[in-house]
Order: sequence, then C-alpha cells, then structure tokens
Amino acid sequence: MSQGIQKNSSLTFHRNNHFLSVAASLLPALQQTRLQPTALVEVVADASEVSGWKTEKCALPASLMQRELAAGDELIIDFGTHCVGYFGLRCAPAGSPPDAPAHLQFIFGETPAEMAEPFSEYNGWLSSSWLQQADVYLDVLPELVRLPRRYCCRFVKIKVISASAKFNLKLSDIHLNTVTSADTTSLKPRHHPDALLDQIDQVSVLTLRNCMQEVFEDGPKRDRRLWLGDLRLQALVNYQTFEQNDLVKRCLYLFAGVTREDGMVSSNLFMKPDVIADDTFLFDYALFFVATLADYIAATNDQQTLEDLWAVAWRQVELSLERVGPNGILQDSADWWAFIDWHESLNKQAPSQGVLIYCLMKARELARKIDSEKVTLLTAKIDELKSAVMEQLWDENKGFFVSGAEQQVSCASQIWLVLAEVGDNDFRSRLIGRLLADPPEIGMNTPYMMHHFIDALISVGNTGCAVQEIKKYWGGMVRAGADTFWELYDPKRPEFSPYGSKLINSYCHAWSCTPAYFIRKYGL
Amino acid sequence: MSQGIQKNSSLTFHRNNHFLSVAASLLPALQQTRLQPTALVEVVADASEVSGWKTEKCALPASLMQRELAAGDELIIDFGTHCVGYFGLRCAPAGSPPDAPAHLQFIFGETPAEMAEPFSEYNGWLSSSWLQQADVYLDVLPELVRLPRRYCCRFVKIKVISASAKFNLKLSDIHLNTVTSADTTSLKPRHHPDALLDQIDQVSVLTLRNCMQEVFEDGPKRDRRLWLGDLRLQALVNYQTFEQNDLVKRCLYLFAGVTREDGMVSSNLFMKPDVIADDTFLFDYALFFVATLADYIAATNDQQTLEDLWAVAWRQVELSLERVGPNGILQDSADWWAFIDWHESLNKQAPSQGVLIYCLMKARELARKIDSEKVTLLTAKIDELKSAVMEQLWDENKGFFVSGAEQQVSCASQIWLVLAEVGDNDFRSRLIGRLLADPPEIGMNTPYMMHHFIDALISVGNTGCAVQEIKKYWGGMVRAGADTFWELYDPKRPEFSPYGSKLINSYCHAWSCTPAYFIRKYGL
Repeated sequence: MSQGIQKNSSLTFHRNNHFLSVAASLLPALQQTRLQPTALVEVVADASEVSGWKTEKCALPASLMQRELAAGDELIIDFGTHCVGYFGLRCAPAGSPPDAPAHLQFIFGETPAEMAEPFSEYNGWLSSSWLQQADVYLDVLPELVRLPRRYCCRFVKIKVISASAKFNLKLSDIHLNTVTSADTTSLKPRHHPDALLDQIDQVSVLTLRNCMQEVFEDGPKRDRRLWLGDLRLQALVNYQTFEQNDLVKRCLYLFAGVTREDGMVSSNLFMKPDVIADDTFLFDYALFFVATLADYIAATNDQQTLEDLWAVAWRQVELSLERVGPNGILQDSADWWAFIDWHESLNKQAPSQGVLIYCLMKARELARKIDSEKVTLLTAKIDELKSAVMEQLWDENKGFFVSGAEQQVSCASQIWLVLAEVGDNDFRSRLIGRLLADPPEIGMNTPYMMHHFIDALISVGNTGCAVQEIKKYWGGMVRAGADTFWELYDPKRPEFSPYGSKLINSYCHAWSCTPAYFIRKYGL
Repeated sequence: MSQGIQKNSSLTFHRNNHFLSVAASLLPALQQTRLQPTALVEVVADASEVSGWKTEKCALPASLMQRELAAGDELIIDFGTHCVGYFGLRCAPAGSPPDAPAHLQFIFGETPAEMAEPFSEYNGWLSSSWLQQADVYLDVLPELVRLPRRYCCRFVKIKVISASAKFNLKLSDIHLNTVTSADTTSLKPRHHPDALLDQIDQVSVLTLRNCMQEVFEDGPKRDRRLWLGDLRLQALVNYQTFEQNDLVKRCLYLFAGVTREDGMVSSNLFMKPDVIADDTFLFDYALFFVATLADYIAATNDQQTLEDLWAVAWRQVELSLERVGPNGILQDSADWWAFIDWHESLNKQAPSQGVLIYCLMKARELARKIDSEKVTLLTAKIDELKSAVMEQLWDENKGFFVSGAEQQVSCASQIWLVLAEVGDNDFRSRLIGRLLADPPEIGMNTPYMMHHFIDALISVGNTGCAVQEIKKYWGGMVRAGADTFWELYDPKRPEFSPYGSKLINSYCHAWSCTPAYFIRKYGL
C-alpha cells in the first residue's frame, strides 16, 4: 500500500446515535453572499510566476452586455477573490430564434493555471472528477442557468461550444452565490502594523472561512471532507478568529459518532448521504482526536463535552500504545500507517513517536480535569517514551534524531520530538538551531508540516525566526497572488503535487491557514 | 444565402390570440412507458452494413448486477427499439466510501455509428449540440440519476470517466421513460400478408409515433420542431393510423397563430419558451398550409376549423401568386426560396410551379366548401399556370420538363408537375415511364422527395411500380436494421448528409413515415 491510499472496505463500524444527534443539532446555517465578476481577464504565460501563468484584465464585466458570443468564443471571468458557492448566469439568444440547443462549457479554477492548462491532459492518480467543469445544453432560450454543484474558484472560463449559424448568445447576470458557515460579524478585527503579516493574516482568515461549511472541510475544492489533521489546526485558528466553537464541538461529536469496531476514530468523515467514516486509519490523526478535544476544552471549558468524549479520547491513547514495542519505540511499517507529511521518502517512526508523546501530554491535561487517576500512568508513559527516544533515536554524531531501520534524518523527526518536549529547553533550542543551520535532506513538503515547524520555533522561544519563516513561506504565496493559502507550496518546485498534477492540488486548504493563529495567539 | 439557411431576425410577426388559444386547448397528454434494456452490445465495424457498423449482443442486462465498473470502463446498452424519452439509472458505489465524485458520460445514439464514431470529430455545419451526450458528476453516492433532457435513441453508451482508486461503480435500474402523444389503443390494426410490406408499415407507424409529441415533430432527435412540410405528410399517415385528428388541428391553428406581418405562414414553429415562428419562409411550405388544411377538412369535415382558417389559407394563395411572372411561370432566384428536396444542385423553379398548381387545386377543394366565389378564379389560374408550363417548361426533344435559366432536367420537376396534373393522363403516364427508364441526373435525395415519387406513380395508376419502389427504398432501410425510417437514405451513398456528417442526420424522421399511408390508403 503506497502513501495516500488504504482500502479496508470490509471493516465494521460502531455508530453512537447520541453523539450523532448532538452533532446534527449543531449543524450550522450557511451564510450566502451574491458575488459578481470584477473583470474579464486573459491568461498569459509568464515564467516568473509560481504557476507559470498570470492574468491580465482585458475588459469590464459590463462589456458583456454588448457582446454576442458565437461557437468557439470563450471568455474568462474573475470574481476578484477566491470563493465557494453556486454559479449561475442568464443566457439569451441574439439573432434568429434558436434552432438548436446551445452547448456551453464552464471550467472553474482557483488559479490561472486551471484556466490555461487543459484538463484533458491531466494524468494524476487522484480522480479527474475533482477537476471542476460542467457541460450544459440549453434546449430553450433564454434560460437562467443555475449549476447544481458547489464550485470553488476565483476564475470561470465560459466557452460556447456550439450555438448555430442562426443565433449567437448573450450572457448576463453572471454570479456566484457564495456559502460559508463562518459568521464574519463574529470575526475579531485585527490590523497588523506590518503590511505583509497583515495580509498573511487576512489570507489565513479567508482560507478558514471558505473551508467552514457544514463541517470544517479540508479544502472546498478537494476533498471537501472533515479530516482530523486539518480539523485540529482549523480549530486553533478558529479560537483566535471566528470563535465558532460549536462547529469544533460538532466535528468532535461526529468523529466520536462513527468509530471502528475497536473504538479507533477514522482519519476522516463523509457527511453525505449520511455520516460515514472513511476506512483510512492513521496513527497520528487518531491521536489528534485527543489533542483537538484538549484544545477545545482549553478554549471553552465545556465540561459536558469532556464527559461525553473522554472515553473516546482515552481509547485512542490505548490503541496507540499498543503499537509501542518493548523498547519503548513505535513499531514501524512500510504501509501508510501515519500521515505526518506528504512525502514519499519520509520515514514515519520518529515523528510519530513525537506525535504520540505530544498527544499523551494533551491527554494528561484532560485527565487532570476528568479522570485524575490516569495522570500518574500517563506521566510514567510519557517519561518512558521520552527516555526511549533519547536512548534509541538520538544520534550524537549527527546531532539529530533518526527514524526507522535506515536511521533516516528528517526535519519532521526533529520538529515533532521538539514539540513532544524531548530533552530539556536548551537541548531543543540547540536542535532547532542545527535544523536551521544545516537542514536535513528529507525536508518539509506541505504547509501542514510547516505549521509544526513554526510551532516548534515558537516552542523554543525563537519567535523572530518564526515570523521570518512565516513571511518567507506564506508571504511567498501572497506574493504569488494567493487569495487563500494552498495545500502545497514549495517555492523551489512550483509544479510539486503528491497527486501527479498541480491542477488537482487544492488552493484553499485548511491546514495552511494557521499563520492567523500564530500571529494572533503569540502577538507576532 | 445557401440552401438550408435564412436569417430574417428583424421581421415583425402577427399573433392571433384566438388561434393560439384554440391550439393550446388541444395540447395532447403524453403517454409514458418505462423501457428497460434488452441487451448489452458491442459495436463492430462491418463494411457490408449501410452505416459501416453493426451491433453484436455480448451480455444480458442482468449481468450488470454482478459487474463493478472502474474508470475507463464503458458499456453499450440496447433498448431493443428506437425510443424517445427520459433516461435514468441508479449508480451505487462498491468498495470503500466514495472519496471523489463519480464522473459518468452518456452518449445516446439512434444508430450503431453514434456509438462508434467519436462526436469530437464531428465537422458538419449544423450545431454539434444536436449530438446527444451528457456528462454527469455525482458528488454523493448512491444516486438516482435522471437526466433532465429528452433523448432519442436505441443505444446508450455509458462510460465511467473517473471514479477513484478506492471505489468502483455498480449500475442498476437503467431505464428510459418513453413519451409520445400517440395513443396506440387508437391505432387501426393491420397485418399485411406481404412480410416486408408489413414490416415497412410497422416501422412507418413507429416513426410517426415517436415524432408525435406536443406537436408533430419532424424528428425527435433533430430538429424536434413543427415543420409544415413534415406536418402535411404526418397528417396523411395519421388519418390512416392513429386518427388523432385534433393534433393536426392544433398544428394548423399554431401555424395560423403566428404569421409574418403580411400574413405568410412560417415554414416551421418553435413551441418553447412560447410559440415562435421561425424566420425561415419557404414558398412550397407556406402553400402546404392550404394542402394540409384541405386534407384535414377532407378527413374530418370540421366546418368550424375551415371557417377559422380559410382566410389564412387564402392569404398563402395570394402571396404565392405574387411570385408568378407575366409569363405565368414562377420567378426563380438563387437563394433558398423553396425547399422541394435537400439538393444543392436542384433548380427549384419547375417543381415549385408544380407545388403551386397542386396547392391551388387543394384551395379550390376548400373554396367549393366555404368560398364558392373563388372557384372560378382558381380554375382560371390553374389553367393559366398549367398552360404556361406546357408552353415554356416542356422540352419536347428531351421529353422532360426543364427548370430555371439553365433548363435543368430533374426528377423533382417531373414528379411535381405530374402531381399538379399538367398534361392529360396519358401524357403523365408516359412521362413517368421515361422517368423510370431514363432517370435524370438530378435525382432524389430524401425520403420526402421519394414520397412524392410514389405519390406520382400511384397518380398515374402504376401501383405495381409504387410497391416495388417502396420495397426497394424503405425496405432497404428495414434490411439495414431501421426501427424507424430515416431523414436521409441513399443506398449508393450511405455517408450522405446535407449537413456534412451522417452523425447529425435524424434516424426517425417524420417525412419518411409515409409508406403506411400508401399501403393503407391504396391497399397496396
């Protein structure tokens, strides 16, 4: 099994109807806003742009009123910002009575690349069905076209595939009814004196906002799903921004509501046609149920939720400890047992050990509030795991932690074992210093991993460097024109995609929205 | 302006609300029948077939229950007969929970060629939007898919464009809810002792049935419109079969309800979004309003309709006579002023003269019933026009009528002037004999023109030859597997299309359904 896919379709799941009904009662209302295009644009190749493309404004939307479109004509509209919602327009005939259906094609893109590079050439391993397009045949004109699917875009390419020699088409009332469960009136206003950090904060907030739907989605283009790893980070940003804590609560009850027969929470859930737990189980994501619950309780002090969900959290602790070998180190395997980062070569053992210790500390926070008998046990386990790390994963010569049978040195291992507070402050500070001075070959591929890097920097008191790295990395996306932060960004490899094509990458992705958390929580 | 297109979008039309309300009151109910596939088939190249393709049964529909379809899989279902209606199926996931939308493509075909030859290579001049296809993205599975457009097909190709590595698709409950306003319980039963004629009769009836919708459509795949030339022939078949005479009445009132400012009826009407007269005006089609009304009155003796519509019919007579030159012959022109046949090289002058005389005789039938003062005038005009034909269009050396400045000899000219009863019986009989023995180079391209050929044969008493020609021509389509008769058929040129591609030809076309009229009316 390669990274990125598990198939366990014969598993049995347990449904907790009480938890599911609590979650259902917290279904948020969606706010709608009608957006209109701000411009008609052209997409132009430009090697200096990260994506290889840029847009140039070529006309005002009002110019469409005068324009008749014939077969083969196309135009690209720009809504001026990243948006999620339902697309519509009015299509009227011009000329003789329409003597054939009108065939329109719509292509939706978060980026100029999706407007420029044909979907027909997509060759990635994720389903091409994520590429957002629609072909519409209008038998009767004029017609108000309202596409039934929810799209995620800044740009829409509209192409007249065919009308007829007897009539052209006139388009008007082009709009996108955006949807989000984020209530902007509840957003804590904040203006950072540093213009770039201010912009990064705003882009973070829009990223979170566009991912806030009936659940915290990972990305509104793809996968549009509730993933635990994303949820944990979204919740952290939410406490500093929209404070819609009931949405976090809803998501926790959803994960607790459908578990594997042995009690393990899934890595992600589907909401339709019913709440369905995916059959992908990840060591780190399951443990993040504990961390997300602890963060939620810290933010809300919601005792009832803690009472309801503590047993589920504790079960994740138990299951994760089953993977610890007699030497106090997690058993490694070649399959996709933990996520950590999108990285084909990354060994997951040491970073997962870090996640385990980190989440046991989160569990101890909770145990202190509800199940104090377990505190001693947890402390003993945490110490035992930390000692095992120092004894077996620390390589004094390299000055780094190593992971797996091949003693791999990766950024992820250092970062997670720093977050797990292995070694004293001084040790961790020096380790981070080495990481900055002499980064291991196995680096970081996602904003998700970058989040933990920033978190680690702050944890050792290096906020100056944290600000610098945020400005460099997320600022790089802003400079590249991002309205929302991306699932993947490597300035040195702009084409990077773990899926085989950047066209299928998500350009509004929850795990990338955490600068607002750092900026606001730590007053960066 | 070439044959096949007129653009007169600045014309003003007159609406007669009384006529339109009578038409609206006669809107027929549609009968629905749920059809299920009879087989899964493969399409195989076969040069001995007219279309170059044949189908071979490869599985029973029930085998789909056991079959999981992955991206790239496709299947072709066969409904066993030509049908018109609404397509649906149930699509369920198999395997892990669906982690991506399912993208299905449906291609509908009246013929195996539409299953085999990619629409993307279509290069005809009619709008490609007539090629029947749909791309569907299913965000939530299982899903009951019901395509909103009406399709016309015997075969449906279903292609899984993408699912994902985690799930496949299972299809079930594939169906087509057929629609027609033809009431089969009112169909006069008839079994012809000659097996081929019996089959031709049945195929004719199915052709008419599938064209009977809210109006008499020309073809349910394309143009799906009320054309006067088709209506006239459909009405003739209807009187011998379904006898749904109110549908003929409705169509007459529709044509009378929206006329050009000067009173000319359009060649065709659109029904949606409202009754709209097309801006295509054809000399022959306008005159067929008179013929169709006369045939309707002959079949029904509906005096009220005659009283209502006589003025409209008479106006067509007046307008058509304006085109007659001082020499008693219609003025020719290079544009698409009369239809007669789909034939780029056909000169329309002489055949249109025949249509004019034919319809003046129909007008005289009506005048005798409602406006006897005009009978004398009409008789004088008919005689004058006939004399002019004999004086100016008859070429004694060639033994044929000639047409236009270049004195073209065509089948159409001879046929229409025979139907116009120019010359005595013996003259016409000998003319038809020469036509059979030594057919002019400018032949007949459509079943529509073939209808008039058969009609002319019968008019001179040559029913044996009529039967032979019906068996040869329409029997050829039956032998080629036709469930319904085609818009175009030339056994020597199977690829013939006036539109640039046989893919866009209609394979259930009203003007081709007249053998049932001849067989039943004349007891062939």
